[in-house]
Amino acid sequence: MYQRPTAHQIDPLTGEMTGASGRYEKRISDLEGLYADAAAFAARVAEDPDHVVYRVFEQRPAQAKGDLIFGTTWMEPGRIGAEYYMTRGHIHACANRPETYYGESGEGLMLLESPEGETRILEVRAREMVYVPPMWIHRSVNTGDVPLVMSFCYPSDSGQDYGIIERSGGMATRIIATATGWEAVANTAYRPRSDAEVAAVLATVG
Amino acid sequence: MYQRPTAHQIDPLTGEMTGASGRYEKRISDLEGLYADAAAFAARVAEDPDHVVYRVFEQRPAQAKGDLIFGTTWMEPGRIGAEYYMTRGHIHACANRPETYYGESGEGLMLLESPEGETRILEVRAREMVYVPPMWIHRSVNTGDVPLVMSFCYPSDSGQDYGIIERSGGMATRIIATATGWEAVANTAYRPRSDAEVAAVLATVG
Repeated sequence: MYQRPTAHQIDPLTGEMTGASGRYEKRISDLEGLYADAAAFAARVAEDPDHVVYRVFEQRPAQAKGDLIFGTTWMEPGRIGAEYYMTRGHIHACANRPETYYGESGEGLMLLESPEGETRILEVRAREMVYVPPMWIHRSVNTGDVPLVMSFCYPSDSGQDYGIIERSGGMATRIIATATGWEAVANTAYRPRSDAEVAAVLATVG
Repeated sequence: MYQRPTAHQIDPLTGEMTGASGRYEKRISDLEGLYADAAAFAARVAEDPDHVVYRVFEQRPAQAKGDLIFGTTWMEPGRIGAEYYMTRGHIHACANRPETYYGESGEGLMLLESPEGETRILEVRAREMVYVPPMWIHRSVNTGDVPLVMSFCYPSDSGQDYGIIERSGGMATRIIATATGWEAVANTAYRPRSDAEVAAVLATVG
């Protein structure tokens, strides 16, 4: 009659989560258009199109509204040109839905952007709980030299809009490698959202 | 205009969470009526009424609906008579709201009960993600000899009904110490919920 309580062991190094209801992978050839250096991207794809950049384990319970989806993200370390590996990124389709990301191992960043284009950056490491509030576009970046593993949790009626980043020519900020770590630089291809585009995001609030 | 993204470091041994918006403690004298052995309970209270049994750090974001509350629970190891230390326990006031509990350190149990009185028990240890589905009463039990620390996450419109356990004379199952570990035994004071009481829980679904 009721959903069954479950327990899921998480491996902090591989991100494997036992009993997950689903998993998916993003390979380098799935990530066209994310990186500034198109030539470096093309060379990497030519070298190994099936190279896995990140992998997600997730548990989606049955109830659509008021329930939670949780899981793990495992991200390979690496760069395309100077730019660190990142996830595709999204805003929730119902934009006022939040998400928590909890560092399991490795080092990285949560790169956040408001609909109006304000950037925020939070560091993620083991035992760091990052709160992505309602209304923020977000993407994870692995700035370390080992995999970045995080567990996550979000409301089951959130949905994902991945197109919001693509429509603006990427996020306003790129994360690149420096001699001593990372640096945030402006994405020169970025086109700020128009008032109408911002209004369209605000209209998804539920 | 929007809520600010935040990051919170969690200490897996003490449960301390930086930047938490609130915290509370339950002392032994707050937990009257939970344990089977009333004499042992009274003796412990007489000895030290301010003895802290568990402590919660929590972050409550601003949005009431569709948002998430997260935090940590730290539980002292110990027993009252044969019975392991436990939290007061609750069902969500909006009963079809779930919760995740993630083991940080120590060893314990999540004790679950459906409105009709079915018991489920899941073990919690470091890196174990326990999913409490909609509609389950739940309580944490520290069966180890060190603190049990967990992080948790639940929808911000869940609410807590603590009285549901008290009204039934406790949960149907008690967790007691044995020579080699723990054992689940029937709570002889338990009064199963009537059809009307079950219907009242189902009526909170939102």
